[in-house]
Amino acid sequence: MKREWDLLHTPGPTPIPPSVERAMNQPMIGHRGEKCKELIQSIAPRLKPVFKAERDVLILTGSGTSALESAVVNTTNPGDEVVVVVAGSFGDRFAKICETYELVVHRIDVEWGKAVDVAEVEDVLRANGETKAVFLTHSETSTGVMHPIEAIAARVNEISEALVIVDGVSSIGGATLDMKRFGIDLLVTGSQKAMMLPPGLAFVAMSNRAWERIQTTSRPRFYLDLRSYEGRIGDGQTPFTPALSLLFGLEEVLTLIEEEGGIDSVAERHQLMQKMTREACRALQLPLLTSDEEASTTVTSIHPQTFEAEQLRKLAREEFGLILAGGQKHLKGEIFRIGHMGYTRPANVLQYISILEIILKRLGHTFEPGAGTAAAQEAYLDATREGKA
Amino acid sequence: MKREWDLLHTPGPTPIPPSVERAMNQPMIGHRGEKCKELIQSIAPRLKPVFKAERDVLILTGSGTSALESAVVNTTNPGDEVVVVVAGSFGDRFAKICETYELVVHRIDVEWGKAVDVAEVEDVLRANGETKAVFLTHSETSTGVMHPIEAIAARVNEISEALVIVDGVSSIGGATLDMKRFGIDLLVTGSQKAMMLPPGLAFVAMSNRAWERIQTTSRPRFYLDLRSYEGRIGDGQTPFTPALSLLFGLEEVLTLIEEEGGIDSVAERHQLMQKMTREACRALQLPLLTSDEEASTTVTSIHPQTFEAEQLRKLAREEFGLILAGGQKHLKGEIFRIGHMGYTRPANVLQYISILEIILKRLGHTFEPGAGTAAAQEAYLDATREGKA
Repeated sequence: MKREWDLLHTPGPTPIPPSVERAMNQPMIGHRGEKCKELIQSIAPRLKPVFKAERDVLILTGSGTSALESAVVNTTNPGDEVVVVVAGSFGDRFAKICETYELVVHRIDVEWGKAVDVAEVEDVLRANGETKAVFLTHSETSTGVMHPIEAIAARVNEISEALVIVDGVSSIGGATLDMKRFGIDLLVTGSQKAMMLPPGLAFVAMSNRAWERIQTTSRPRFYLDLRSYEGRIGDGQTPFTPALSLLFGLEEVLTLIEEEGGIDSVAERHQLMQKMTREACRALQLPLLTSDEEASTTVTSIHPQTFEAEQLRKLAREEFGLILAGGQKHLKGEIFRIGHMGYTRPANVLQYISILEIILKRLGHTFEPGAGTAAAQEAYLDATREGKA
Repeated sequence: MKREWDLLHTPGPTPIPPSVERAMNQPMIGHRGEKCKELIQSIAPRLKPVFKAERDVLILTGSGTSALESAVVNTTNPGDEVVVVVAGSFGDRFAKICETYELVVHRIDVEWGKAVDVAEVEDVLRANGETKAVFLTHSETSTGVMHPIEAIAARVNEISEALVIVDGVSSIGGATLDMKRFGIDLLVTGSQKAMMLPPGLAFVAMSNRAWERIQTTSRPRFYLDLRSYEGRIGDGQTPFTPALSLLFGLEEVLTLIEEEGGIDSVAERHQLMQKMTREACRALQLPLLTSDEEASTTVTSIHPQTFEAEQLRKLAREEFGLILAGGQKHLKGEIFRIGHMGYTRPANVLQYISILEIILKRLGHTFEPGAGTAAAQEAYLDATREGKA
C-alpha cells in the first residue's frame, strides 16, 4: 500500500497538515538575508506562548535528543549531582546523557506505566542537598504516562535550588506546562510530535534562572552551546544554518495553533482525544497500561491479554495502513501504543477506533460490537454539549 | 519581489531541484518502520561513491557545524595536539571548535584568498611530532579558495600518524576528493550546498583508520557520538529521529547525480561553471580574489576596486532578485561572492553574467559591452567542443 493512504498514529513522527506541507515547499533563501530575518522574527514572539515561556524559545537544528543533550551540557559541570526520574525509555535516555557527561546521577526508577510520586522526588532531593538539577519527562512516550510536572516543579522550588529540567518531546504543542508559574527552568521538545512538523528542529525554552546558570557553566560545548543561540533569535538570527524548510513550516504551524484559539484550546482537543480513546478501549475490553490520572494526553498504551500486540499492529497496517507503535525494551511485544497528537482530531479517533473493532473481531477478541465507537462518540458528545467545551 | 522569482546564487543555501522538492513533500512515516529502513538502505550504498568513501557515510540531523564538531569530539581527547589550517571563516570555526574542546591547537594562518602550501603543513607537522590530527577546509566558502587537499593528505600520511580531517561543506557534491587513494580519514559536509537539499542534514564519511581512532577516543559525547551511528546505516537505522523529509529528498538527489553520469560528471560541470564565471569576470575587468590554481569550483569571490561590492549586491537583488553573498569578517563590504553549485547549470551562469553586465553599467564600471557574456560562452563552447567533454 502506498504511503499516501497510511493513517499514521504513532507517537511521532506525526502527520503533517497540508498547509504546513505547502509552506515548507518553498524555494530556499539565504539564511543571513532579510527574508530569513523576517521569518524568524515572525516566529519568535508566537512560539513563546506555546511554551508559556518568559524568554524567547531557542531553535536548534537537530533531533529531539540534541535538545535533551543541550539541557545537560549547558547547565551542569562534570561531577555535579543531579536527580533523574526514569519511568521509561526517554527518562532512561536523559539519565544516559547525564552519565555520559560525568554527572553523579541519582536515579529514581519508576515502574513503567506509572507516574512518579512528588513525595519520592522530594525524599531523594532532601537526601542529596547538593543536587544541581532535576531531570523529568513530561509525557513518557514509551509508556503513555504523563508525570505531574507542575506539582513536582513547585515542590522542588520550595525545598531546593536545583533547576527543574523537563523533556517535553511528546507533549509540547499538545499539552501545556506553565513554566513561569510553576518554576520550570528548561523545557525542550522536537518538531515531529505535537508540533506538527517533520523531524529536524529542536526547541529549548528557559527561565531567567536557567539562563544565569548557563552563562556560568564552564563545560566545553559548541554546536549545542545555548549561549550562541540566546539573544539572537529576537534579531532573526541563528548561529548556524537552520533547517529552513522546517522554519517555513513552523510559521504555518503557529498560525494553525492561533486559529484554533491558542495553545490552551489545542491542549483541550488533546484531552478530548485521550478521553475518547480511553473510553473506547475500556468498552472494548482492552486493558490500559496507565491509570486515568497518570495518562498522557498525546499517547495511549494498551496491554492486551487475549491476543498478541504485534499481531494487531500487523493486521491494522496491512489491511488499513493504520500505523501504530509497539512497545520498547521489556514492553516490546507486550503493548501497543496509539499516538493522538498534532494534526489529529476527534474524527481521526473515531476512525481508528472503528478500524480497531474490525481487527479485534479478526483476532477473536470478545467485545460487544460497536461498543468502542459508541463510547468514543459519547465522550465526544459529552465534552461538546452546550455549556461545556 | 516574491521569493519565487529569486535567483539564489549564494554559496549555500542553494536552489532545490523541483523533483527533490516533490520527493520531500511526502507524508511522514515512522522512523523505526519498514519504509524508513528501505529508504535508508536505498540511500546508503549510493551515498558512498559521492564521497569516494570506503565505509558507509553516516547521516546526522544538524547543520554542517554539527558535523565539524563530531569530527573533533570523536577523534581527539583533551590536551591532544592538532594542526588547523585557517584561511577563512570556516577554517577559523574548526580552530574554535578545537579550542573549545581543550586541544593544543597549532594554527596555520593563511592570507584570506590564498591556499595553504603543502610545505607549510609539512613544516608545522614536523615541528610538532605529537600531532593527532590535521584539520583542513576543502572549499573555504568565505573566500572561494580550494586547498590542495589530496596533496596535503598524501604528504601528511607520508610523514606522520595524524588523521587527515576535512571540512567538505561547500565542496562535496560539486567537487570530489578521493578519500581512499589519498588517505583522507574524515570528510564531512552539510546538505544545503552542492548536495542540492535544504539545510538540516550533515554527512560524515570516515576511513577504517578513523573508525579505529573513534572507538578508542574517551571524550564524553552523546548526540554527536559517531559510534551510535556507525554500523546502523547499513541496517537502515539512525540512532535518533532523522530529518525524514530531507532523507526523502536525498534519495532523489542521488538519482539526479547518477542520471548525470555519477559524481565525476557532476564535478566536471562545476569546473566548467567556475571557468565560465572566471573568464567572464576577467573580460568584465572584475578583479578575482583568488588565482586560477587556488580557485574553488563552487564559489567565486570578486574584489571590486571601482565600485562598492554591497551596492552591486543591492542592485542585483532589487532589480533581478539575483541573490549574491557579501564578504565575511575583514572582507565584509570588500568582496562579493557568487555560488555556482548544486542545482546550477551553465545556463544559470550565462544568466547571472548577463545580469551583472547590466548592473555594472548602472554602477558606471568600465568594460566592453557584452564582453563577459562572450567570454562565458567561449569557455562553454571550448569545453563542449567535439572530442572534449
